[in-house]
Amino acid sequence: MTDTTQDRYLIISSDTHAGLPTEQYRPYVDPGYRDAFDDMIRQRQGENLASSISDPEFADKWLEEQKEGISGAWDVAKRDKELDTDGVVAEVIFPDGDAVTGFTGAPFGAGLSSTGALEPGLAMAGARAHNRWLAELCAESPARRGGVAITPVLDDPAAAVEEAEWAAEHGLRGVLIPAMTAPYPHYHDARYEPFWAACADLQLPVHTHSGVAPQDDYGGHLALYLMEVRWWAARPLSFLMWTGVFERHPNLRFGVTESGAYWVPDLLWLMDTRFHHAHTSKKIKHGAIIGELKMPPSVYFDRNCFIGASTPERFEIERRYMIGVDTFLWGNDFPHPEGTWPHTREWLQSSFHDVPVDETRRMLGLNAARVYGFDLDQLSGLADRIGPTPADLGQADDTANQAKWKEARDSGRFWLKQYREQRQGVPA
Amino acid sequence: MTDTTQDRYLIISSDTHAGLPTEQYRPYVDPGYRDAFDDMIRQRQGENLASSISDPEFADKWLEEQKEGISGAWDVAKRDKELDTDGVVAEVIFPDGDAVTGFTGAPFGAGLSSTGALEPGLAMAGARAHNRWLAELCAESPARRGGVAITPVLDDPAAAVEEAEWAAEHGLRGVLIPAMTAPYPHYHDARYEPFWAACADLQLPVHTHSGVAPQDDYGGHLALYLMEVRWWAARPLSFLMWTGVFERHPNLRFGVTESGAYWVPDLLWLMDTRFHHAHTSKKIKHGAIIGELKMPPSVYFDRNCFIGASTPERFEIERRYMIGVDTFLWGNDFPHPEGTWPHTREWLQSSFHDVPVDETRRMLGLNAARVYGFDLDQLSGLADRIGPTPADLGQADDTANQAKWKEARDSGRFWLKQYREQRQGVPA
Repeated sequence: MTDTTQDRYLIISSDTHAGLPTEQYRPYVDPGYRDAFDDMIRQRQGENLASSISDPEFADKWLEEQKEGISGAWDVAKRDKELDTDGVVAEVIFPDGDAVTGFTGAPFGAGLSSTGALEPGLAMAGARAHNRWLAELCAESPARRGGVAITPVLDDPAAAVEEAEWAAEHGLRGVLIPAMTAPYPHYHDARYEPFWAACADLQLPVHTHSGVAPQDDYGGHLALYLMEVRWWAARPLSFLMWTGVFERHPNLRFGVTESGAYWVPDLLWLMDTRFHHAHTSKKIKHGAIIGELKMPPSVYFDRNCFIGASTPERFEIERRYMIGVDTFLWGNDFPHPEGTWPHTREWLQSSFHDVPVDETRRMLGLNAARVYGFDLDQLSGLADRIGPTPADLGQADDTANQAKWKEARDSGRFWLKQYREQRQGVPA
Repeated sequence: MTDTTQDRYLIISSDTHAGLPTEQYRPYVDPGYRDAFDDMIRQRQGENLASSISDPEFADKWLEEQKEGISGAWDVAKRDKELDTDGVVAEVIFPDGDAVTGFTGAPFGAGLSSTGALEPGLAMAGARAHNRWLAELCAESPARRGGVAITPVLDDPAAAVEEAEWAAEHGLRGVLIPAMTAPYPHYHDARYEPFWAACADLQLPVHTHSGVAPQDDYGGHLALYLMEVRWWAARPLSFLMWTGVFERHPNLRFGVTESGAYWVPDLLWLMDTRFHHAHTSKKIKHGAIIGELKMPPSVYFDRNCFIGASTPERFEIERRYMIGVDTFLWGNDFPHPEGTWPHTREWLQSSFHDVPVDETRRMLGLNAARVYGFDLDQLSGLADRIGPTPADLGQADDTANQAKWKEARDSGRFWLKQYREQRQGVPA
C-alpha cells in the first residue's frame, strides 16, 4: 500500500453560496413574473438591504474589505481565485451569495429565507430564476461546481418534482427544501412522497440549510434566533427518519447544512434508544414508535444522511466517531463572514492538527465527492497544485495521531454498546 | 472533619406527582365553575381515559400491578409507604398523579398538559382546585412535601401573581407555568415581569415540566413527540436567560423538570460562546445579542437555574461537571412508570456506583433542600432509617472514585478554558 500520508488534500467545500445581484436576475425570471419582479426591485430601491440581523457597521466594513471576494458570488473567475487561495477544489453551492445584506438574494426571497409563508407562485418563480442562472454558472466549470437547486415543495410537490428533474438534466447536484413548512403540513405528510421518490431516482441529495426560525416568537431578541436557528434547520431530519422516508427510499440522501454537527450524537442516542424501547418511553406501544422502521435510526443515518458541517468547532471534530466520520462534510461557507473563508488554511490547521490523515481526507473531501458524485480524477490535478499537505495542517506524526484517538474511535456511539452486548448474549 | 462517607443518604425527589381522581376535585372547584366541572365529568364517563400516547395493554397491566402504589397519588399514608420503600424522605410534587391514563388529572386539563390553547377561565379554575387540594395534602406532613402550584400566567399575569401569593401563604414551594405559550406572547414579553418579580420575592421556584409538544405537527407519529417533548419544555430557559429575567431578578429560580439533563452542556456552550461573540455570529451587533446580560449565561444558570433530572441516564451523570453538580437534582417521578419508582434503590446503584459521595449527596438531596427550602434537621431522622448508604449504592472506595473523575472535574465546562486564558493574559 502506497503511503499517502504526505499527499496534498483534495478539499471540497460542502457549503458555499452564489447569487447574482438581485436586479440582474430579470432575464432569468419567467415572463409572467417580470412585472412582479420589477415591482420588487422598485420597492427594494428605497430599502436598506442590510439583513434584519446584521450590524450595519460590520456590514459596511465587511463589504468594503471583501469587495473583490464577494463579487465571486456571481463571477466565476473571481470565485475560482478565492477558492484556490483557500485551497478548495470543488464546492456545493447554495443560494444567497451575501449573508450580510440581501443584495444577492434569489428573487422574491425564494432562497435560504423561504418558508411556507412565501406566496407559492413567487416562491417557484424565484427558485426557477435562480436555478437557471446557477446552472449556467456551474456549466462553465462543471467538475468544480455542485449547484443546489431551490425546489419549493410545499404547495405543489408535483411542480417541485418537475423542477428537480430540470435541475438534474441541467447538471445541478442537489435540491434545497424549506426547513419550516407552516401553514403546509410538515414532512411526515404523504403529499411529499413523490418528491422523495424523484430525488432518490435522480440521485439529488435533499437539503435543509440554516436561515429560518420563528422570529415572531422572539420579540426582537436576536440571541433567541442564534439559540434556535440550527434546531429548526435540523428538525426535518427527525420527520423524515420516523415516518419511514429512508426505509422506503434507500437511495435518498438528506443533508443538514450549516447548522453545526455537535447535536448529532445526542439526537442519534435519542433516536436509537427510543427505537429499542427505552424505559422512559415504555408506556407507549413499541410499534407505534417505530412505525415502518426496520433498522435503528443510526443505521439509516449512516446510509441516508450527512451533515454539511460548515466552520466546524473543534469539539465537533472531537465527536466525529459519534457523528460519523463518513457523514461529516466540512465546508467553508464562502463568501459568508461566518465561514472560514478567506482564512481556511489557518482554520484547518487549528481544527485538524491532530486528526489522522485518512479521516481528514474523508471529512475534507472524499465524503462530499461520494455524496455529490464529484469526479476525483478531474479534480486531482488542481488539488495537487492548491491543496494543503498534512504537514501544512500540522499533522506531523500520523501514527501518533492514530493512537491518540484510539479510545474515542473504539468507543464510537457509546449507547450502542448495550445492544451489541445483548446481541452477543443471544445463542447463535 | 468527620468522615461522612458512610452516612446514609438523605434523598429528596425533585419530581413526583400527585392528584385526586378527577371527579373528587369537585368540592375544591370555585362554585362558579362547578357546572362546567360537572359537564366535564359527564363527558369523561363515556371516554377512554388512556392518554393519547399510552399503549392500552401496558396501561391495564400497570394499573393492575401498581394499584396500591398509584393510590399514593392522593393517599398520604400509601404515598409515605412507597417513598419509604424507595428510600426517599421528601419530594417536589407536580400535578397529574397518573401519566398512563388521565384519571387523576387536574380539572379541565389544567395540569401538565396546559398550554395557551386552554380557555383561561378553565385553566385558572382547574389550577385553583388542584392547588387547594395539594396544599391540604402537603399540610399533613409539611417537612416531607414540597408542593408545586399550577399558575396559569399567560392570559392574566396579575391573577397568576395572586395565585402564587396564595400558594406561598399556604405552604406550597414552587409554581408551574406552561411550556408552550401560543397564542399568547412567549416569555420574553414584559407582561410577565410582575410574575417573575413576585416569584423571586416569594422564593417560589418557577418550573416548566415535560408534557406538551406541538402534536398537530406530528401527523400522529408518536416518535416525533418523543424526539421533541424535552426541547419544548426546556425552550423557555433560553427566553428567560436572553431577555434579562435573571439579571433583573437575582433571586428568581427557574427549573426544567423531567426533561433530561444531557442537553445542558451544549446549550450552555452555545449561550456562553454567543455571549462572547463567537465567530459564526460576528456579523450581529454584540450589544444586540447580549442585551441586558452582564455575565456569561452559565453564571446566571448556576445562580438562577436548576434541572429536575428525573430518571437520569448514566451519561447524564457523567456530564455533571458541565451541567453543574449543584444544579443537577435527581428525581424518581413517583408514581409514573417512566420514573425509577418502585426500583429506585437498584437504579441508584447502577447510576451512582462510582460517583464521589459528596457529589452524590448534593445531586440526591442537598441541592433540592437548598432550592426548595427543605429543613434537613426535620428530615434527618427519617433519612437515618430509610436512606441507602454509600455502600448500598456500591460506592466502596470513595478515594478511588474521587480520583477516577479528576480529569472530568478539572475540565468542567471545556468551552470556558479559552476565556479563562484570555483573562489570565490581561495584565493585572
